[in-house]
Amino acid sequence: MSSFFDKRWVNLPRGAEELDSSVLAPGFRAGATHCGLKDGGETDVAVLVCDAAEVASSVLLTRNAAAAAPIRVCRENLDAGAVRAIAVNSGNANAATGEQGFKDAIEMQSAAAGALGVDDREVVVAETGVIGVPLEIDLVTDGLRKAAGSLARDRATGFTRAIMTTDRAPKNLSVKAGGVTISAQAKGAGMIQPGFATMLCFVQTDAQIPDPDAALREATDRSFERITVDGQMSTNDTVVLQATGETETPMPAGLLDSVLLALALEVVADGEGAERIGRAQVTEARDAEEAERVARAIANSPLVKTALTGRDANWGRIAQAAGMALAGEDMPEPGPHSISYEELGAETDEAEIGIALGRGDASAHVYFSDLTHEYIHINAEYTT
Amino acid sequence: MSSFFDKRWVNLPRGAEELDSSVLAPGFRAGATHCGLKDGGETDVAVLVCDAAEVASSVLLTRNAAAAAPIRVCRENLDAGAVRAIAVNSGNANAATGEQGFKDAIEMQSAAAGALGVDDREVVVAETGVIGVPLEIDLVTDGLRKAAGSLARDRATGFTRAIMTTDRAPKNLSVKAGGVTISAQAKGAGMIQPGFATMLCFVQTDAQIPDPDAALREATDRSFERITVDGQMSTNDTVVLQATGETETPMPAGLLDSVLLALALEVVADGEGAERIGRAQVTEARDAEEAERVARAIANSPLVKTALTGRDANWGRIAQAAGMALAGEDMPEPGPHSISYEELGAETDEAEIGIALGRGDASAHVYFSDLTHEYIHINAEYTT
Repeated sequence: MSSFFDKRWVNLPRGAEELDSSVLAPGFRAGATHCGLKDGGETDVAVLVCDAAEVASSVLLTRNAAAAAPIRVCRENLDAGAVRAIAVNSGNANAATGEQGFKDAIEMQSAAAGALGVDDREVVVAETGVIGVPLEIDLVTDGLRKAAGSLARDRATGFTRAIMTTDRAPKNLSVKAGGVTISAQAKGAGMIQPGFATMLCFVQTDAQIPDPDAALREATDRSFERITVDGQMSTNDTVVLQATGETETPMPAGLLDSVLLALALEVVADGEGAERIGRAQVTEARDAEEAERVARAIANSPLVKTALTGRDANWGRIAQAAGMALAGEDMPEPGPHSISYEELGAETDEAEIGIALGRGDASAHVYFSDLTHEYIHINAEYTT
Repeated sequence: MSSFFDKRWVNLPRGAEELDSSVLAPGFRAGATHCGLKDGGETDVAVLVCDAAEVASSVLLTRNAAAAAPIRVCRENLDAGAVRAIAVNSGNANAATGEQGFKDAIEMQSAAAGALGVDDREVVVAETGVIGVPLEIDLVTDGLRKAAGSLARDRATGFTRAIMTTDRAPKNLSVKAGGVTISAQAKGAGMIQPGFATMLCFVQTDAQIPDPDAALREATDRSFERITVDGQMSTNDTVVLQATGETETPMPAGLLDSVLLALALEVVADGEGAERIGRAQVTEARDAEEAERVARAIANSPLVKTALTGRDANWGRIAQAAGMALAGEDMPEPGPHSISYEELGAETDEAEIGIALGRGDASAHVYFSDLTHEYIHINAEYTT
């Protein structure tokens, strides 16, 4: 796996060192196994646990109103500030599965808690895969117990493989900087049949994080909240941060941002059918909300996405998308003087789009994948 | 050309009779010619004029903040309630062309007014085609004068051909019902390089319409405001209604709706790469705004669009899109009990998607095209 840190747009804190990505931060262990949700013997259930004396945590969940059962369990039956463990499966999202789905997710939480010796309310449940299909809960609970019997600190990649759906490769990394270690695992934004895109990300560290909610919210705002593949909010998105504080050392400024952004960019690059990544940068907006609205309109425009695929510096489509986002308002007429489209080197899969709105001094940016034949193939033809 | 009135979803008023679509309503004449904006000698400039003693009118324009020059001219220099004539070209949208573009559009208006013997402020200017390219105004004004010399009542199809860009066929019709005649011409939603989608529609009638603004607003709300191809608002959209009232007879209830809806459905069917049309029907919403928001989220979801292409009754994608539109709110969990996906006969290109939100009693629907390889081909590969 290539290093995340040769990625454009990711600024590493000074002195940061990339570690073996299969090794979790000190104080954490993971285990994974195959329980039968996926065909072909691939791992599909996993647990992750914190062994440290203390843990502070934060959990972010999708805002989708049709949220899956595990999301509802995390909303209703979790001490989000004291998360000890993760119980996760791939192959079934347990979404749109009604009250039985909720009971199944509760049973997952309880089975993992029992196997790991923690409280039910200290276990995050996360699931990804097909939707609308009842969960084979006995397979999952047996798998969770088996996974809990194989815990080791160097099973981070095994854990990550067990949460993959159509991801092309596992997305995990470990970094040391300023005396602390941080490890993180993500999956997405592949979709499975007849599924949703789901983004999951789990982060562990031995740094001291006084306010995990603020830290995770801020870093997520700058990473997973800055990406789009198809503009579709998932029913199952979950991001978890666990910090033991055992080093009694604060997280170096920018480290959490860098780690989450590196993984978020991996998600975009692995978006369905994605060949290229664009970054839409909006400046001179009236306020941050307006800047973001315009950036998202550009990033989600199928005309801009296909232009990115075709390496077509089509500023007219950018102007149109911006104008749509500001419908009914006045703006200085956009044109080549205010819009830029830059291929980042001849051989690269990345491009920068910029537009200056001439209305104020706020700015925002969004990373996005392009729209290709493979996207149509995956979503129109690969279905059953 | 097939009859518009065998279209599903269009309810014709009792006794309505389809007339030769090349003939305008009494009191109107049109002319078209080739001025040189398009290659290959295709017609690309046209005029339409009302000869009746009185005319009442209404004009609807895009709300895009990056509106094209002709839109700005219509906003600033038009008596929208007394429109006598239309001056239109295809091949150049005159969008993002700065102050020179505005001057050129004013010159178009003035040239057409002079040739037709009406006031400048009685002429709607509409343009569609490439953007960001200066208009060859002398070609256009010469063409307008030439077109004005060929006016005839039976040139409706010629007029419609002159406003086409990548449309596969002209979209025009003439209908008689309840003692009045109505003719209408539309174009869209093909795109040209490096262009925008633009929807233009011109409607003429000898009916008496006491409040043309209300009539056009209402009929447009039920037709052109109910469609989407790619969720992208154009810089040039224009809809014009002209009514002479010479029959001293009111428009039969529903006739204007039917005519505009028939043309709007043609625009969807002719959407870039479109193979199929879907109708997303949302019921049990809290209010009309919410119902429409959810319907648009479904209609613009690339996952739902590709499912339509693949004839995949993928209710999970519908639930996800609805949940996204209601992000942060509570809704009864959607599922097969509340979501329907119906192919409208084995041989049809149409499908109905329904979702009952269980939150209230408001409803809304949106017609949409699917997302196909041809869309990618047109927009990613056909570019220069």
